[in-house]
Amino acid sequence: MTHTHQDATGLLDKLQWRYATKKMDPAQSVPADKVERILEAIRLAPTSSGLQPFEVIVVTNPEVRQRIQAIAWNQAQVTEGSHLLVFAAWDHYTAERINHMFDLVNEERGFRNEGWEAYRQKLLAAYPNRPAEQNFEHAARQAYIGLGAAVIAAAFEQVDSTPMEGFDPAALDDILQLRARGLRSVAILPLGYRQADGDWLANLKKVRRPREQFITEVR
Amino acid sequence: MTHTHQDATGLLDKLQWRYATKKMDPAQSVPADKVERILEAIRLAPTSSGLQPFEVIVVTNPEVRQRIQAIAWNQAQVTEGSHLLVFAAWDHYTAERINHMFDLVNEERGFRNEGWEAYRQKLLAAYPNRPAEQNFEHAARQAYIGLGAAVIAAAFEQVDSTPMEGFDPAALDDILQLRARGLRSVAILPLGYRQADGDWLANLKKVRRPREQFITEVR
Repeated sequence: MTHTHQDATGLLDKLQWRYATKKMDPAQSVPADKVERILEAIRLAPTSSGLQPFEVIVVTNPEVRQRIQAIAWNQAQVTEGSHLLVFAAWDHYTAERINHMFDLVNEERGFRNEGWEAYRQKLLAAYPNRPAEQNFEHAARQAYIGLGAAVIAAAFEQVDSTPMEGFDPAALDDILQLRARGLRSVAILPLGYRQADGDWLANLKKVRRPREQFITEVR
Repeated sequence: MTHTHQDATGLLDKLQWRYATKKMDPAQSVPADKVERILEAIRLAPTSSGLQPFEVIVVTNPEVRQRIQAIAWNQAQVTEGSHLLVFAAWDHYTAERINHMFDLVNEERGFRNEGWEAYRQKLLAAYPNRPAEQNFEHAARQAYIGLGAAVIAAAFEQVDSTPMEGFDPAALDDILQLRARGLRSVAILPLGYRQADGDWLANLKKVRRPREQFITEVR
């Protein structure tokens, strides 16, 4: 059921509700339709030039998740959750990847736009010639927009999630054979349900810098 | 008014509604309460270790926005919108910044947690010793979580926004004197209202890679 919103109050409530869940209940699995809506939020999230320079790997296989847990500081949510989302950024911007996206846009819209084609040429002239590392860092930033969208979508689904950077990216890339696909893992996100007893963080106050330390205005 | 959600369908609707608005109506200003809720969503967004390693500068001053437009490919939304959010990441992780956040957490929660203190020491031993550029890139990624939250919050407010990387960061840092504050601009986000006539993108289909090109599963 879709609700009509007038403002972001409901979103703020969800951001307050969520927290970096430290203990998940291994007996509870996130239903497939909820996972799909979380993935759809990531897919719809904005990215630079619409390139979507990352992919998401959804790991449910228990053995694979055990191996990932071992290279992720042994964080229990990796296996206590029911799904593990792996955000993997493009290792480089290649002409092929850029053209694929611009071609897809033309195909979906059913026409070629002159300004859009000029923009394609601009990106083709710039991106593939930059160092791979610079492009990867740029792609990684876009993946974090998707990571944020995933956390928010999960909260709307009353699903707990824990954004994690505490893992060995090279080891995870090996486990999932990401480098052969031109991908590098940047963040992981277990999905599951909080097990409040046993989670030291569950009942602690969410702390953020006060507005005056975070926002400044140039009027 | 707060609505109770069962799922993320409303969020997906908002993600479909929004687009990178190319022309904003300069006659319409975003009300202050809407801007505040958008800023609050950014403030509440998750970040690595909760450090919130970025700040947001809200520029409404017309002359300053004109100067920014000049170093942002002359993109009109910078001045046609009513507010310009500048996302500025920490240029480095310093012991002072890390301690400030851990102290704030202790103060707000009213007690010191042994595990939390051990984690502080771990970050203090690791982050300040890394190259500034590495820390900046890490901080920039966190800022993009906030950027994504801002775009989503704006959509819930029926406010248009345009995430932009097309500007000269060093020039923007100069205009806003960010480097002296240990900040580096990474993205800007004009807020305003779409002026659909005159916006070539307003009525074009949103294109994303299909699920099978974006999501893979390891079952």
